[in-house]
Amino acid sequence: MESNPSTMQEQSPSCQEITMEVHSVVPPPHKSTIQKLKTRLKETLFPDDPFRQFKGQPTKKKWVLAAQYIFPILHWGPNYNLKLFKSDIVSGVTIASLAIPQGISYAKLANSSFVPPLVYAVLGSSRDIAVGPVSIASLILGSMLTQQVSPTGDPVLFLQLAFTATFFAGFFQVSLGFLRLGFIIDFLSKTTLIGFMAGAAIIVSLQQLKSLLGITHFTKKMGFIPVMTSVFHNSQEWSWQTILMGFSFLVVLLVARHVSMRRPKLFWVSAAAPLVCVILSTFLVFAFKAQHHGIGVIGKLQEGLNPPSWNMLQFHGGHLGLSMKTGLVTGIISLTEGIAVGRTFASLMNYKVDGNKEMMAIGLMNMVGSSTSCYVTTGAFSRSAVNHNAGAKTAASNIVMSITVMVTLLFLMPLFQYTPNVVLGAIIVSAVVGLIDIPAAYHVWKMDKFDFIVMLCAFFGVIFISVQHGLAIAVAVSIFKILMQITRPKTVLLGKIPGTDIYRDLHHYKESVKIPGFLILSIEAPINFVNSTYLNERVLRWIEEYEAEDPKMQSNSSLRFVILEMSTVSTIDTSGVSFFKELKQTMEKKGVELVLVNLVGEVMEKLQRSNEAGDFMKPDCLFLTVGEAVATLSATIKGQSSNDV
Amino acid sequence: MESNPSTMQEQSPSCQEITMEVHSVVPPPHKSTIQKLKTRLKETLFPDDPFRQFKGQPTKKKWVLAAQYIFPILHWGPNYNLKLFKSDIVSGVTIASLAIPQGISYAKLANSSFVPPLVYAVLGSSRDIAVGPVSIASLILGSMLTQQVSPTGDPVLFLQLAFTATFFAGFFQVSLGFLRLGFIIDFLSKTTLIGFMAGAAIIVSLQQLKSLLGITHFTKKMGFIPVMTSVFHNSQEWSWQTILMGFSFLVVLLVARHVSMRRPKLFWVSAAAPLVCVILSTFLVFAFKAQHHGIGVIGKLQEGLNPPSWNMLQFHGGHLGLSMKTGLVTGIISLTEGIAVGRTFASLMNYKVDGNKEMMAIGLMNMVGSSTSCYVTTGAFSRSAVNHNAGAKTAASNIVMSITVMVTLLFLMPLFQYTPNVVLGAIIVSAVVGLIDIPAAYHVWKMDKFDFIVMLCAFFGVIFISVQHGLAIAVAVSIFKILMQITRPKTVLLGKIPGTDIYRDLHHYKESVKIPGFLILSIEAPINFVNSTYLNERVLRWIEEYEAEDPKMQSNSSLRFVILEMSTVSTIDTSGVSFFKELKQTMEKKGVELVLVNLVGEVMEKLQRSNEAGDFMKPDCLFLTVGEAVATLSATIKGQSSNDV
Repeated sequence: MESNPSTMQEQSPSCQEITMEVHSVVPPPHKSTIQKLKTRLKETLFPDDPFRQFKGQPTKKKWVLAAQYIFPILHWGPNYNLKLFKSDIVSGVTIASLAIPQGISYAKLANSSFVPPLVYAVLGSSRDIAVGPVSIASLILGSMLTQQVSPTGDPVLFLQLAFTATFFAGFFQVSLGFLRLGFIIDFLSKTTLIGFMAGAAIIVSLQQLKSLLGITHFTKKMGFIPVMTSVFHNSQEWSWQTILMGFSFLVVLLVARHVSMRRPKLFWVSAAAPLVCVILSTFLVFAFKAQHHGIGVIGKLQEGLNPPSWNMLQFHGGHLGLSMKTGLVTGIISLTEGIAVGRTFASLMNYKVDGNKEMMAIGLMNMVGSSTSCYVTTGAFSRSAVNHNAGAKTAASNIVMSITVMVTLLFLMPLFQYTPNVVLGAIIVSAVVGLIDIPAAYHVWKMDKFDFIVMLCAFFGVIFISVQHGLAIAVAVSIFKILMQITRPKTVLLGKIPGTDIYRDLHHYKESVKIPGFLILSIEAPINFVNSTYLNERVLRWIEEYEAEDPKMQSNSSLRFVILEMSTVSTIDTSGVSFFKELKQTMEKKGVELVLVNLVGEVMEKLQRSNEAGDFMKPDCLFLTVGEAVATLSATIKGQSSNDV
Repeated sequence: MESNPSTMQEQSPSCQEITMEVHSVVPPPHKSTIQKLKTRLKETLFPDDPFRQFKGQPTKKKWVLAAQYIFPILHWGPNYNLKLFKSDIVSGVTIASLAIPQGISYAKLANSSFVPPLVYAVLGSSRDIAVGPVSIASLILGSMLTQQVSPTGDPVLFLQLAFTATFFAGFFQVSLGFLRLGFIIDFLSKTTLIGFMAGAAIIVSLQQLKSLLGITHFTKKMGFIPVMTSVFHNSQEWSWQTILMGFSFLVVLLVARHVSMRRPKLFWVSAAAPLVCVILSTFLVFAFKAQHHGIGVIGKLQEGLNPPSWNMLQFHGGHLGLSMKTGLVTGIISLTEGIAVGRTFASLMNYKVDGNKEMMAIGLMNMVGSSTSCYVTTGAFSRSAVNHNAGAKTAASNIVMSITVMVTLLFLMPLFQYTPNVVLGAIIVSAVVGLIDIPAAYHVWKMDKFDFIVMLCAFFGVIFISVQHGLAIAVAVSIFKILMQITRPKTVLLGKIPGTDIYRDLHHYKESVKIPGFLILSIEAPINFVNSTYLNERVLRWIEEYEAEDPKMQSNSSLRFVILEMSTVSTIDTSGVSFFKELKQTMEKKGVELVLVNLVGEVMEKLQRSNEAGDFMKPDCLFLTVGEAVATLSATIKGQSSNDV
C-alpha cells in the first residue's frame, strides 16, 4: 500500500516551486472488532475515565478510593475543620432563610424538604449546590397531576401520586446515572433550555395570578389561553387589597434581586428578602386582621417533621402511567437544572463533577425524599448561587440548611398561619422571572438563526401547547437540524495558496488558485446512507460545472483528476463504500481519475476491505496531502504529454 | 486578523528544517443571512440544480425546455424512429408476459394495471423502468387492510379502501417530489432495505403457504408465529395434489431464474417461465379436471377493461386513518423501490434521473391508477431488469406492455379461469425469493458490524413484529447510530511526520512524533449541543494524560499550547461557541494557551461574532496549518526562555 515508486521518479525533474518527497500512505494498525467495540463503549459511557485514579494502586488503597468515590463525604470529611465549618454555617443559614418561604410556596406543604439535602451532602460531589425543590419541576409536577386528580377534591390520592412521581423521577435519574447514559440530557441544548425556561417561567407566573389577583375560581389548565380566559372571565373576583399587597411585595423582591445582581457582595439582600417579606406580610395580616378583608392566608399548617411516606407509594392501579410520565418529565427537567448548576460552579471554581455520579446522587436523594414526604428536589440555580456567594466551602452547608429548616418545622410553623398566599405568589414570580433570559436569547439570535427558531419552538410550544410537548418539539427540531447538516454536508472547492503547498477553500481565501486539470474537493462530513446519494449528485455537479466553465476543452486544462480531500470524513458506512465505488465507475466513464487524500484510519480500512477484487483503491490513487497528490500527478500528466509528442 | 508580526520575526533564525512563511488567516467574505439561507435551501432542495439548463436561454426556448422537463416524452418523442420502436416492442411484449401472471397473482384482480404505465411513459425520465404492481407493496397493502376489513366478507369496502390507500400513496409521493423532500427516502439505507426486503420476502412467502399447501382456513395475520401456528393447526387441510403441483412449478421457476441470472443473454428464460407455467398448469387442470381433486382455481374473472373507480375513493368515515396509514407505508416502500431501480439503471447507462421528478411521475401514476381500479404500482426491479435486458430503448416499451395487457384483458381473460391458485403462489415465491440477498448481507457483516445489527433489526422486526414497526425500528436504530457518532466525535492526537511539515494521527502513522510542549488535537465532527459537554471533558482528559505522562514537568516539556486542528469542524452552534469560551478559560487557569488551526469560514465567523469583548480569538492564536502554528509558537517559547536566562 505504498505510493507507486514509478510516479515518484517521474516527478522529480519537471515539477513545482517546492521540491518535495512523497510520503507513503500506510494502512492503520490492525484492531479486532472486540477491541474497537471496547474503545467505542469506553468513549461512549466513560468519556471522563472515572476509574483512572485506581490504576496501579494497592488493593487497600483501592477500597478507600472506591468508598471515597461512592461517598464523597469520606473524601472531604476527614479534613473538615472549624474554619470550613464557619463558612458553611453562614451559607447554610442564608440558604435556609431562602428555603423556608420557597418551600412553602412551591410545595404548598408545611413539611418542606429537609431529608434530600442530607442525602446529597453524603453522596454529592459538588461543593456549591444547594438542594431544594425548584419552581419549574415542582409546578410541572403539580399541574400534570392536577389535570387528572384534584388536590383539594382527593388530597390523599394527590399526595400518593406526587410521591410516586417523585419516586419515579429519582428512579429514572439513578438509572440514567448508573447506566452512564447521562449524555441523554445533552440533547436538551442550552438554546432549547433558554426557550423552555422562559416559557415555563411565564406559565408558572400565570398560575400565580390566582393568588396575586385573589381569584378563587381558577382553571386547572396551564396553557396561556385557558389561564387568561379564566382570569378575565372571573374578573369580578379580583380583590384590590390583594393586588395592592401582592404588587408592592413583588416590587420589593424585584428591587432586592436587582441590587444583588448588580453587586454580588450584597447577595444577602435578595437572599433575605423573601423571608423578610413573609415575616412583614404575616405581621401586617395579623395586625390588621386582613384575612377578613379579602386577603387569603395559608391557614393552619401541619406541624412537626416530615412523616414517612413509603406506604403512600403506589406501583399499581390506573394512575401508574400518569405518575411514571410525570416522574419522567420532572426527573429529566430537574436533572438538567441540577447538572447544569453543578457543572457551572465546578468550572468556575476549577474542580470536577462527574455528571453520571451526580445523577445517581440526585436520583437517590429523590427516591429517599419520596419516602419522607418530599416532592422532586434538585440543585437549584438561584439557591446555589446564594450558597456560593455566601461562602459555602463543602456540602456541609446543606446539612446546616437542613437542620435550620428542621428546627423551623418543629417549633415555628404556627407563626406562618397568617402568611398571605399573595406574598408566596410574589416570591415565586420574583424567583422565576430570572429564568427569562433576554440577553441570552439575543445572543442566540446573533449567533445562529436556526438555534433561535429552536428556542422559539420551545418557548411557544410550552406556552401554547404544553410543557411536555413544547420540550419534545424543541428537541425534535434541534435533532432535525443536526440530521440536516449530515444529510446535506458541505463540499468545498479547494485552491492552492500561491507560493505554498497549502490548499484551502477557494471562496474563503480569495488569493488561492485552481490547478488546471484538477478538481479538488473537500467533503465535510462522515459519509453514510443519508448523504451518499446527495454527495454523488453533488460531486457530479461540480465536475459538470468545471467542464462548463471551460468550453474550449484544451487538452492540458481538461479535467484529468478529481482529488477528494478526506481528512474530514471521520467515518463511513456500507453506503459510503458504495458511494466511492459508484463514483469511481462514473468517473472512469468520463476518463477522469479519482484520487483520495488523507484517508482516516477507519475509512481506509473499510475501503480496503471492500477492495478484494483489487480494482479499486490502487495505491497510486492515495496520497497524504493534496500538495503531494497534485505534484505527483501533474508530473504524470507532463510525462504523458511529452510521450505523446 | 493577521498573524502577529512580532512572533514572525522571532521565529526566523532558530527554527525548523523547513523554512516557511506564516500565512495570514483571513475572515471569510461577508454573506447576509438571506444569502446564506438561499444557498442552504438550494443545497437542501435542489442539490442537482435541475434548472441549470434554463440559464441564459431565450424565452421561447425556456418554454420548450420547461415542457420537456415536465413531460420527458416531448424530449425523446420527436426523435423516435422505427429502430427504437423495434427494440421497444420486443421488450414491451416480454415484460407483458411477465406482467400478466404477476398482476393476477399480486392483485388477485383481473383488471391488471394497464393505465399507470401509460402515465409513466409520458412523465417518467427513466428509459429502463417497467411499471407494475410490486410484490412487497401489493401484499403489504392487502395485509394492512385485511387486518381490519375482510376482502371476502365486505369486498366492496375492501376495494374502496384499497383504491383510497393507492390514492394516498400517490398523493404522498407527489407531495414529497413537489416539495423536493425526496431525500427523506434516503433515511431508508440500503442496509435497512436488505434486511427489510428479506424479511418481507419471508412474510410474503409465508402467506403463499395458503395456496401452496391448499389450506382453506388461514390466518389473517402476517407475523411468522401466527402464520406457522395456523399452518400446523390446519395440517389436516393440506392437499398432496396441490403440494406436488406447487413445488414442481416452483422448482421450474427457480431453475429458470437461476439460468437467467447466470447468463444474462438468456433473460427470456425467466421472463417467459411464469406465463409458460400459467398456461401449462391451466391446461393440466382443464385436461384432468383437477379442480375437482383438491386443486383450487382462480375461477371466473371479471372480463373487460378496468372500470373507472374515482367514485370508490373515500375521504371520510372511520377507515380514513387506515387508508392514509396504508397509503403512507406502501407509498414510501414502492417509492424506495422505484427510485432505486431508476437510479441503478441510470448510473449503469450513464444518464440522469431526477429523483424528485421521478417521485412526482410515480405519484401521479398512482393517483390516476387509483381512479382506474389499480393498486399501488411502481418501477419494479425484476421486471425492469428484464425490460433492460430485452433491449428497451425508451419508455415506449411501457406503452407496448400496456397495450398487450389491455388486449389480454379484453379477449383472453376467460382462458385463465382454470389457472390454479397454487401456481400463482409459486410465481410469487419465486419472484420474492430474489429479494433475500445473502451475499449483500455478508458484505454488510464484513464492512460494518453496526450496520449488520440495523439489518437484523429490520429483518426480525418485519418477521416477528410487523412490516411498519420493523421498518420504523430499523430507521430509528440507524438514525441513532448517526447521532451517536455526533454525540461522541473522535478526537485524534496528531504528531509530526519527521522531515515534513505534515501532522497526522499518532496512532495511525507510527513514525510521527509528538512535539514537546504542544498537544495537537483534531476534532472530527461539527461541534454542537449534543457533543460540546463531551468534548470539553475529553479535551481536558487529553491534557491530564499529557501531564501524567511526564511527571517530572521539565520546564521546556511542560504543556504550553493546545493546538486544535479545526479543518474537520464544518459548523458550530451556540453551544459550540460556549465550548470554546469555557475551554479557553479552563486552559488559562492551567497556564496553557489555546490555538486554533484552519478555521472553516462559518466557524470563524461565529467565533468572531461572539468575540465582541475581544478577549477571545486573538489573531496570534489563529493559524492556517499546524506546521506554521508549531513553528511560530516554538520560536516564541525559545524567545521567552532565552529572556528568562
